[in-house]
Amino acid sequence: MKLYDLPASPNARRVRIFIAEKGIEIPKQEIDLATGYNKTESYLEKNRLGRMPMLELDDGTCISESHAICRYLEEEYPEPPLLGRTAIERARVEMWSRRLELELLRPLIDIFTHTHPMWKGTVQQIPDYAEDRKAHATKSLDWFNDALEGREFLVTDDYTIADITGQCAILMGKAVGVRVPESHTHLNDWWGRVASRPTARA
Amino acid sequence: MKLYDLPASPNARRVRIFIAEKGIEIPKQEIDLATGYNKTESYLEKNRLGRMPMLELDDGTCISESHAICRYLEEEYPEPPLLGRTAIERARVEMWSRRLELELLRPLIDIFTHTHPMWKGTVQQIPDYAEDRKAHATKSLDWFNDALEGREFLVTDDYTIADITGQCAILMGKAVGVRVPESHTHLNDWWGRVASRPTARA
Repeated sequence: MKLYDLPASPNARRVRIFIAEKGIEIPKQEIDLATGYNKTESYLEKNRLGRMPMLELDDGTCISESHAICRYLEEEYPEPPLLGRTAIERARVEMWSRRLELELLRPLIDIFTHTHPMWKGTVQQIPDYAEDRKAHATKSLDWFNDALEGREFLVTDDYTIADITGQCAILMGKAVGVRVPESHTHLNDWWGRVASRPTARA
Repeated sequence: MKLYDLPASPNARRVRIFIAEKGIEIPKQEIDLATGYNKTESYLEKNRLGRMPMLELDDGTCISESHAICRYLEEEYPEPPLLGRTAIERARVEMWSRRLELELLRPLIDIFTHTHPMWKGTVQQIPDYAEDRKAHATKSLDWFNDALEGREFLVTDDYTIADITGQCAILMGKAVGVRVPESHTHLNDWWGRVASRPTARA
C-alpha cells in the first residue's frame, strides 16, 4: 500500500490523522504540485482527476476521495472504530462528517481557491463567491458549536471521522481568516481536546 | 420509519431510487418548501439545517444526508447490495459516487441556485459562478463518459449507488441545460440502460 499525499491539503490531513489514529504505518509519497507530478500520464492513469490523497493497493487498485480511503482502511483495520460501532452510529457519523465537509470545510477551501494568489490565473477567482462562502462557513460554525453542547466528541462517545473532518475544517478556517468566535465555548472546548491528541499534527 | 421527501430534489431522488431498488416500502411525507414546514421549530429540532431528505427512525433518531441514509438502509436491508460486495468494491463505489456528487451533481445544482428565478432574493446569485460551474460540469461529463467505456455499470458488474448518483446528475443537467453530447456514446448507452430501469422514476 502507498499513500500519495499532499502535505498542505486539508483532505489529505483527514486521511493522515485517520491512519495515525489506527496506529498503522503506510508508506507515503509526498506530491509537490509545483513539479506537476499529479498531471503526468502515469498519475492520471491511476487517478484521472489528478488529485491527492490517493491510496494505491498492492494489487494496483487505486482509491481516491478521502472518505472512501478511510472506509477501506476501517474495513482492513477495524480497531479502533472511527466510523461508528452500530448501523445507527455509522449513519450518524457519516451524516456529521458530510455536513462538516460540505457545509464548512469545502466553503473554506473555496475561499482559499477564490482569493489566494496561488490560484490566480489557474482558476477564475470570483471575490463575490468567496464572500458568500465566508458567510456560509460562519453560519456553519454556529450549528457546529450548538451540536457540541455537553459532548466530549461530536457524534458518539468516541473520537470519530466526524471529529477529524471538523478538526481539519477549523484548521482550514484559521488559514483563510474564518476563526471560531470566543463565544462559541462548546466548539472551543472541543477544539482544545482534539487539537491536543497525539495524532493532531499527522 | 418515515422519509421526509422533497419531490423535486435530486438528492431526495437518489434516496427514493435506492429505496425502490431495495424493494422496500417506507412511508413518505412530502415537504412543500412554499409552506416553510422545513423551517418550523419542530422540523429544525430534528434537522437543524432544515434540509430534505431526512429519515426518521421509530426510536426518533433522525438521519439526514442522502448517502448516510442509504448507508443505514444498506445495513438494514442488505439485498441487493448497492454499496458494493467487498471492501475494495465498497471503497470504489463510494469514490465514484462522491466524485459524481461533488464534481457533477453539485456543480449542476449550483447552476440552478445561481441562475433560477426561484432562488432570486433568497440567495445572492452570482452569474459568473454559474458559468464557472457549467464549465466544470461539462468537463466532468468527459471523464464520466471515459469511465463507462466497455462497462455495463460504472463501478462493478452490478448497478450501485454510484450509478444512481450519476443518473440523478444527468437528470439535473437536463434541467439546467448541461446535456450529454451525442459524441459521449458510452455515457449515452449507459443512460439508456439506467433510465429504463423500473425504479428510474421513483
